[in-house]
Amino acid sequence: MRLEKVLKEMQKRQLTHLIINDPSSIDYLINYKNNPGERMYLLLLSSDGHHKLFMNNLFYLDHELDIEQVWYSDTDNYLQLLADEFDGACSIGIDKNFPARFLIPLMNLVDECHFELGSECVDRVRMIKDEKEQQLMIEASKINDLVVDEVINICAKGNLTEEEVSKQLEGIYQKHGCVGNSFEPIVAYGKNGADNHHSGDDSRLKAGDSIVIDIGGLYKGYCSDMTRTVFYKEVSPKQKTVYELVLKAQKAAEAMIKPGVRLCDIDKCARDIIAEGGYTVEFNHRLGHFIGRDVHEWCDVSQNFDLEVQEGMTFSIEPGVYLQGEFGVRIEDLVLVTKDGCKVLNSYPKDLRIIGND
Amino acid sequence: MRLEKVLKEMQKRQLTHLIINDPSSIDYLINYKNNPGERMYLLLLSSDGHHKLFMNNLFYLDHELDIEQVWYSDTDNYLQLLADEFDGACSIGIDKNFPARFLIPLMNLVDECHFELGSECVDRVRMIKDEKEQQLMIEASKINDLVVDEVINICAKGNLTEEEVSKQLEGIYQKHGCVGNSFEPIVAYGKNGADNHHSGDDSRLKAGDSIVIDIGGLYKGYCSDMTRTVFYKEVSPKQKTVYELVLKAQKAAEAMIKPGVRLCDIDKCARDIIAEGGYTVEFNHRLGHFIGRDVHEWCDVSQNFDLEVQEGMTFSIEPGVYLQGEFGVRIEDLVLVTKDGCKVLNSYPKDLRIIGND
Repeated sequence: MRLEKVLKEMQKRQLTHLIINDPSSIDYLINYKNNPGERMYLLLLSSDGHHKLFMNNLFYLDHELDIEQVWYSDTDNYLQLLADEFDGACSIGIDKNFPARFLIPLMNLVDECHFELGSECVDRVRMIKDEKEQQLMIEASKINDLVVDEVINICAKGNLTEEEVSKQLEGIYQKHGCVGNSFEPIVAYGKNGADNHHSGDDSRLKAGDSIVIDIGGLYKGYCSDMTRTVFYKEVSPKQKTVYELVLKAQKAAEAMIKPGVRLCDIDKCARDIIAEGGYTVEFNHRLGHFIGRDVHEWCDVSQNFDLEVQEGMTFSIEPGVYLQGEFGVRIEDLVLVTKDGCKVLNSYPKDLRIIGND
Repeated sequence: MRLEKVLKEMQKRQLTHLIINDPSSIDYLINYKNNPGERMYLLLLSSDGHHKLFMNNLFYLDHELDIEQVWYSDTDNYLQLLADEFDGACSIGIDKNFPARFLIPLMNLVDECHFELGSECVDRVRMIKDEKEQQLMIEASKINDLVVDEVINICAKGNLTEEEVSKQLEGIYQKHGCVGNSFEPIVAYGKNGADNHHSGDDSRLKAGDSIVIDIGGLYKGYCSDMTRTVFYKEVSPKQKTVYELVLKAQKAAEAMIKPGVRLCDIDKCARDIIAEGGYTVEFNHRLGHFIGRDVHEWCDVSQNFDLEVQEGMTFSIEPGVYLQGEFGVRIEDLVLVTKDGCKVLNSYPKDLRIIGND
């Protein structure tokens, strides 16, 4: 079923073949997980239905697969094996992260073929979650609501560094049935929250610090991702103003989501509200990203995509304002697009909250 | 100095430009660490000396760089910015993992240029470690000797699962001054040691199990990597025979290393000895890999490379025999090639050892 949808996308683009090397996409399509490291691992889809999976002898097949396999060893000329699949009439779609070390030699071996980026054929199918996937996304985010509450309670004690809090996350997610984090957790105090590249260090909380908590877990193969910003002991008028502005933008963006609305317009809605509050360059990233098996899936809720929202999509809505040297505020939920609106997958409160005064 | 060496390699290949996107290589050349995630981050070297670093506005520059920067934002046409650097006469070397999502659009934008794989220009410089790097590699492996001893002592108690032992590694490395593991540690009991893709599970030790311990730490930016195989409580005659065979191959390979010897011949030496003992397909991987800032660097000690060994190279020598459903044996040291031989960086004993009987 999933494969058929991908083949339809290939047909639209007149591709005779599609090379898929994203292990997550391959698993999605043929139900086989593999971590190939630096070795060539790819699913070659063909419009004639003769699909093949290229496997190194060192890969481990834990169950029978209903797809032809081409096994090669490190000393074989595996790119020639791949090239042998094509003739001059082929139009080959290439996965977005297929590396140059395979692509350039392949292009040289079959230089009469047409090559183009082809991963949208898979990504456009992956972006619409089926019922089972939706259920897992809902459950994963329910767990994240519980985890963020635990983290905020840990922060409220005020005695741990960012790094010490971050390190507890994996265990907390595991306690709730997750494999672990779905990405490197962010717990950033005060001005560290204004640096999008800050990684948890030995900073300790001071009264008046914002605390940006951006965390997610991996549950039965699906990712959660939520951000809450709280304040330690006290909040300044400026912090309060910025917080309310980001919250207003976040809620407004969520409120307009329904099938047919364009992604760029959702981004614009939030960006305009924040701009009206006086912040433009301080909101320096896209409004959201798609999510599912991977924490960042194709595509973005940003000015770069005029794609219309469809039922079954799951993405983040995460506006932020970052004041360098002062503080940062980001508020993020995941949403699932429904028939006539969206279901916000996180129900953890978003009202301004001051912790550490109990 | 490093840059000059890379430019010489470009000249040999008549490249006017080199696109480097490996963050580890960029750091090696210009002393700036960055984790770009999915965003375009690259160092463009030009034979005319006008090098440029492409930076997304979200990247964080923690110190001044002595190189021109091209800053772009997510909504800019950054591939056009890159394409503007080239004219029809350009011959552009491409980094080995440069992804198709950048490469294919770039090729379309400047289709009169010549593109080829170019990362050897950097990799051939990186493969020869300078004195400071050699010292760090030596220190990193000294730490690994201590860590493997701790792990063997933990295993000797016999009460922990593979996973429980593996999870302790990060903390042990940190205790010894490392940032953490340099790769996912392998602690594999009994038949699990025969599966190169086994990840630590809840298996417990049984008398007669082999224990494959393949671990490494990241110390001041440089990696260690060592494997020892020990036996729990008892060893069968077959295990003993296989162990002695692998050890003989490992020592013979190390003994022949000196400048001028070809990598493929070192591989052949070990492989022939193991074949004489009756095992061929059971030694199913390359003999070794280069190592330094990354745990796997270009190139391999395998039949694929007839490159001659040079002073300053650091690579692993790690033959193994894997008997599916029974047990596995791998013995691995890192070596540093010297003027007239090699220094084995691991001095932890390799003689057959039975643990758990104290």
